[in-house]
Amino acid sequence: MRKIAIFVGSRANYSSIKSVMQAVKDHPDLELQLIVGASAILDRFGAVIDIIRNDGFEPIAQVSMMIEGETLGTMAQSTGLGLLHLPNVLQQLQPDVVVTVGDRFETMATSIASAYMNIPLAHTMGGEVTGTIDESIRHAVTKLAHLHFPANEDAAERIIKLGEEPEYVYNVGCPRVDVVANTLKYDKDKFQKDWIEAEGVGGSIDIDKPFLLVSQHPVTTEYGSGEQQINATLEALQALKMQTIMLWPNIDAGSEDISRGMRKFRERNDHPYIRFYKNFPVETFIHLMDKAAVMIGNSSAAVREGAYIGVPAVNVGTRQIGRLRGRNIIDVDYDSDKIVAAIQTQLEHGKYESDHLYGDGEAGKRIADILATATVKPQKQITY
Amino acid sequence: MRKIAIFVGSRANYSSIKSVMQAVKDHPDLELQLIVGASAILDRFGAVIDIIRNDGFEPIAQVSMMIEGETLGTMAQSTGLGLLHLPNVLQQLQPDVVVTVGDRFETMATSIASAYMNIPLAHTMGGEVTGTIDESIRHAVTKLAHLHFPANEDAAERIIKLGEEPEYVYNVGCPRVDVVANTLKYDKDKFQKDWIEAEGVGGSIDIDKPFLLVSQHPVTTEYGSGEQQINATLEALQALKMQTIMLWPNIDAGSEDISRGMRKFRERNDHPYIRFYKNFPVETFIHLMDKAAVMIGNSSAAVREGAYIGVPAVNVGTRQIGRLRGRNIIDVDYDSDKIVAAIQTQLEHGKYESDHLYGDGEAGKRIADILATATVKPQKQITY
Amino acid sequence: MRKIAIFVGSRANYSSIKSVMQAVKDHPDLELQLIVGASAILDRFGAVIDIIRNDGFEPIAQVSMMIEGETLGTMAQSTGLGLLHLPNVLQQLQPDVVVTVGDRFETMATSIASAYMNIPLAHTMGGEVTGTIDESIRHAVTKLAHLHFPANEDAAERIIKLGEEPEYVYNVGCPRVDVVANTLKYDKDKFQKDWIEAEGVGGSIDIDKPFLLVSQHPVTTEYGSGEQQINATLEALQALKMQTIMLWPNIDAGSEDISRGMRKFRERNDHPYIRFYKNFPVETFIHLMDKAAVMIGNSSAAVREGAYIGVPAVNVGTRQIGRLRGRNIIDVDYDSDKIVAAIQTQLEHGKYESDHLYGDGEAGKRIADILATATVKPQKQITY
Amino acid sequence: MRKIAIFVGSRANYSSIKSVMQAVKDHPDLELQLIVGASAILDRFGAVIDIIRNDGFEPIAQVSMMIEGETLGTMAQSTGLGLLHLPNVLQQLQPDVVVTVGDRFETMATSIASAYMNIPLAHTMGGEVTGTIDESIRHAVTKLAHLHFPANEDAAERIIKLGEEPEYVYNVGCPRVDVVANTLKYDKDKFQKDWIEAEGVGGSIDIDKPFLLVSQHPVTTEYGSGEQQINATLEALQALKMQTIMLWPNIDAGSEDISRGMRKFRERNDHPYIRFYKNFPVETFIHLMDKAAVMIGNSSAAVREGAYIGVPAVNVGTRQIGRLRGRNIIDVDYDSDKIVAAIQTQLEHGKYESDHLYGDGEAGKRIADILATATVKPQKQITY
Repeated sequence: MRKIAIFVGSRANYSSIKSVMQAVKDHPDLELQLIVGASAILDRFGAVIDIIRNDGFEPIAQVSMMIEGETLGTMAQSTGLGLLHLPNVLQQLQPDVVVTVGDRFETMATSIASAYMNIPLAHTMGGEVTGTIDESIRHAVTKLAHLHFPANEDAAERIIKLGEEPEYVYNVGCPRVDVVANTLKYDKDKFQKDWIEAEGVGGSIDIDKPFLLVSQHPVTTEYGSGEQQINATLEALQALKMQTIMLWPNIDAGSEDISRGMRKFRERNDHPYIRFYKNFPVETFIHLMDKAAVMIGNSSAAVREGAYIGVPAVNVGTRQIGRLRGRNIIDVDYDSDKIVAAIQTQLEHGKYESDHLYGDGEAGKRIADILATATVKPQKQITY
Repeated sequence: MRKIAIFVGSRANYSSIKSVMQAVKDHPDLELQLIVGASAILDRFGAVIDIIRNDGFEPIAQVSMMIEGETLGTMAQSTGLGLLHLPNVLQQLQPDVVVTVGDRFETMATSIASAYMNIPLAHTMGGEVTGTIDESIRHAVTKLAHLHFPANEDAAERIIKLGEEPEYVYNVGCPRVDVVANTLKYDKDKFQKDWIEAEGVGGSIDIDKPFLLVSQHPVTTEYGSGEQQINATLEALQALKMQTIMLWPNIDAGSEDISRGMRKFRERNDHPYIRFYKNFPVETFIHLMDKAAVMIGNSSAAVREGAYIGVPAVNVGTRQIGRLRGRNIIDVDYDSDKIVAAIQTQLEHGKYESDHLYGDGEAGKRIADILATATVKPQKQITY
Repeated sequence: MRKIAIFVGSRANYSSIKSVMQAVKDHPDLELQLIVGASAILDRFGAVIDIIRNDGFEPIAQVSMMIEGETLGTMAQSTGLGLLHLPNVLQQLQPDVVVTVGDRFETMATSIASAYMNIPLAHTMGGEVTGTIDESIRHAVTKLAHLHFPANEDAAERIIKLGEEPEYVYNVGCPRVDVVANTLKYDKDKFQKDWIEAEGVGGSIDIDKPFLLVSQHPVTTEYGSGEQQINATLEALQALKMQTIMLWPNIDAGSEDISRGMRKFRERNDHPYIRFYKNFPVETFIHLMDKAAVMIGNSSAAVREGAYIGVPAVNVGTRQIGRLRGRNIIDVDYDSDKIVAAIQTQLEHGKYESDHLYGDGEAGKRIADILATATVKPQKQITY
Repeated sequence: MRKIAIFVGSRANYSSIKSVMQAVKDHPDLELQLIVGASAILDRFGAVIDIIRNDGFEPIAQVSMMIEGETLGTMAQSTGLGLLHLPNVLQQLQPDVVVTVGDRFETMATSIASAYMNIPLAHTMGGEVTGTIDESIRHAVTKLAHLHFPANEDAAERIIKLGEEPEYVYNVGCPRVDVVANTLKYDKDKFQKDWIEAEGVGGSIDIDKPFLLVSQHPVTTEYGSGEQQINATLEALQALKMQTIMLWPNIDAGSEDISRGMRKFRERNDHPYIRFYKNFPVETFIHLMDKAAVMIGNSSAAVREGAYIGVPAVNVGTRQIGRLRGRNIIDVDYDSDKIVAAIQTQLEHGKYESDHLYGDGEAGKRIADILATATVKPQKQITY
């Protein structure tokens, strides 16, 4: 019985690994050791841990590691705090493999703790290309990881180019798409309208009429420009005055800049057409993407799940630069006029065809099967 | 006037960066911001900070970050502690570039702090191949760094293969060789015999007669085997009973295993032919390498400076596996008979020709010149 | 020239020490070393650091030490994080005396850092009696401190009973009252009505008509009851529907419970009569207390500054239990009916006479004079 | 079944709480949750955890919290690191009571974690008077603790004077004396001569002939004078040249000063009459005290267990100043001549009568019984 420790540190993390958690939990030869920490345990970021528990997963450990401030310095320090706590957790759990997700800053804490402690490290969603500090983190984690689970062939090839042994690189598809496929297949009718109405703050939304879906996060490598960046988007919304569902940003450095921009906008403008949310249950968000007239911002979800769903999307700025994308994306700069124009183009186009660029919905099961059987050696060595 | 922050965390670090520190200090357009921390400030590891001060460098900040225990877990936690402290230091110093050295575990703290804070990161001695966790750390740091100063062409090419932009990869040679070249050129006669006699513990050594020089560190990815590994070497020494200068291990996880092996050996054996040292001034160690009949252990110095010096060396075990090496190295396993045989082969062969595999002694100046002029952008992106 | 390091960790801290900061800054023989940290540097808690800068004080160091979560565990861990950072700061500043304020949890970090490092520790507002964990913290800090600046004779006597040497116990009055006296004397007309209108969220307030002023914080030793406790107060407000200025709670463990109660209340009730604020400039708050019809909650300001101002106040629950109080206070339990009744009693009574229970407004100057001349020895010893 | 968490952080801690651990473990209504950390898990300080395991106790958690350096700053930072880790441990163990011992710096971490988390805190050996920072720590912990287990009536009265409620102050005697009484009663003949010979480094000792027993620790409030202080003692030993068993110092700030003095002494002098030890099994040390001609240094053991055993002792310097002592103690300053004279006086006097000043050997059982039945409330309040 192999023990598989999975660290979930944010709402984005959870969407990215949920299908793997389920597949590990269901696998006869695997035991799931779920560690929840960072912003995933914070009320202020939507208490993702409660959603996780509601979904039937019980965390075996919690890690408080977010130092308040949301500056570049506290982002590094929070990673340091994670690195102080995680070795204790891993020492106690003695996992056979640690699974870390993607490219958020706390991923580095999990990766270093695991690699330094000679515990084989598995990494999902490596090998992709984007902007922001995530780009550096993602490839650095690849160089620490022993097992690679990229989301598509392009990413898999890039990991091999990075000098990783091909036998440890598995193109499994993206686990986020698993959740999408599953949700749209089985739960098409179970859309939680009530939840949409009960939660959130601001104007009321009629989900059966066209609406915009906005999610814009800070770009850490452009730290200090967040308020200006969100303002471009907010002005575009104000110009359109279509009904809009808008998310607060994640906890990356610069989060407070985006939030301040949003708060000021709320104070200065009448905005009955926008409703603000801290968080959504994973499935609800997928349904929202499926129903949204246009998705706007810089979330990877628009690129990744968006391709599969076919949601028309306007990607603003550099955060997703370089990431493999389907036809559903129009890229624009932080410029309200261009954002308005792109939204209008997408409104005219309407829904796109589903594109399996990021997998077919079976990633979780493939990963679990590999975790159950792969043999890894702690000592890595570059292939060239 | 660009501010160049350099972090020195161990005696090995210092040898690796000393010529860069000097060149930065001497450069009219650069200001040196020296940060000393980790084991370099600890008495128990030879108070490297005092040697640094004696050499005319004044630290602007000190970082206490070593958590006692020397286990794999405390190695990760010490990195975490560094990550808690370094952002405060960098916030205060506001350097234009941070320089980090090689592949020791604390390097990761410097690298993450710098990269997350959007401060351009320069990395020396990247692109090489070895064993132990250093192998993973070195390449991960490459993926976080903005400027690369590899020690030879082979390493430079590997960094480019890792997807780094060629214009930021400078084959400058190894700064450790700078110190060697300088020391052997100018200070040939200034060998500190008195120091050798005054310091250390154990038998007395006649430096004018043939002697062995032993330096063996833990291999973190073989954690738990350190005592057994050093025992093979100690048995070989005991079989030869040649006069021997032996260093205590560095502070990597497993250090205590090696030390315990050495302490037990001392208690159980009469060993008038061995003298034990915690540390050497950099130049003294180079003279010792120059004069040593054979160098034994797994220090990178035997491979690197050793090539330039031509010291006959016996490299034990996996720590240097894959590293580019000259003809002066014989590789053997942790096996006392094989170690004895290899030492005897080297004793017969005697000194090798100088090999400029790791540079010509001008690395420090080249690095300073590049630091003074290179333009870097915080946002990295892989080239493929 | 003695260097006096003062640590400010929250908005409450700042009010408590501002007059001392001013007097130290103005003193010819003293140099102020201002360290700002904990919640005082956080946007979410009103960016007290900006207010401090506006008041003409320049921080020499900042300390990020708040670990998100606001549980009892993170309260302890945040103290630990402060204890990791503060020794570095003190090592660099080399103050002659460290001044720590009152009884908030981060005070313990300052106190331990200072006492362990043999730096004389001065403590303001010790010797008082209250509820919550503050009660334990306050007396523990007294046992670590070398100089004591209690706010009244009662507190001074208690400190001496605690075994402190009488010659180091100075009854100077409360520095918070200094600010009150000063503000009411010189700035009576400079009340910032505009600020009141521009800031905050919620209904609009006519400051020239009677209003309630509400400030209720978590009681850490009753952790988990915060939502219920604030509900009693909110129900009372809802019953009265008088115009009300209400503050969000401080960052103590349980803060999120209070906030959640307030957020739910806002979502479920029409509340045009309440306006919510994160923070006030110190002077504005004093004017508000001076003008308020009744002050409600469990803030020490009602007891302390309230006595001097004569504001009619309703003190809810156990947080101020045991603290010396004037006639302006009516104590009630967490019971909405009783809160309503007490508010009505106070409305009928109107303003009280000024009571100099907590000093006469000259504490800051007295403290600065003592700091400039007192001789302290690091080794303490209990007097009995 | 009440869960009693006990934190052991050093060899001294363990001697002080061993009989309580045993009594808790043996009690039908109590479950022992043993947490071992700080220097008790370090090889360099004698791997106390191994001794603990040999004695039949299994730690439920380990806490790595010692930051290397042994300066005043790292002493504070190590406490901070403990405060980061302990809340996680306590959160997981959910003890009903936490027991903390005495007055070492790490005690503060346990105490704050417990008090802030509303877990009743029991404190042993409070209320005593000494020098060094321990004096401040001890009384500060008393102000945080809910249950007090002083070692004698004098200490019990002092705790009550400190404003603690008499009903929570139990004069139980000193648990260290329990171990003494037990060892001398039952194990008189089981003295581990072999161990004495096998362990340690230096000259060989004939335990059946008169010998000196030396244990001298740093005085943190006299930080920087350690080397000079130990030199006085070492000169006295050199003058007498009696066979001597000498311990290395504990890990308090300044430890390195004492160690350096001892190392230099060893290098510069022939010292066949001294044997150096890192640590002793508790019982072995008691037998050594029982057999020693004179005990020298500043360990509290000479005062405390020494009173019961009647060992003639020379207490050097200020570390034990103010502590209740029996007739077996001669106090002297850091002056080699006076130390020699006092040792000679004690040699002439020989063994003293047993003095039950610190209890009768039943403290552990009394404490366990009280822990099983006492009711405590988290909210403390001073009695005056």
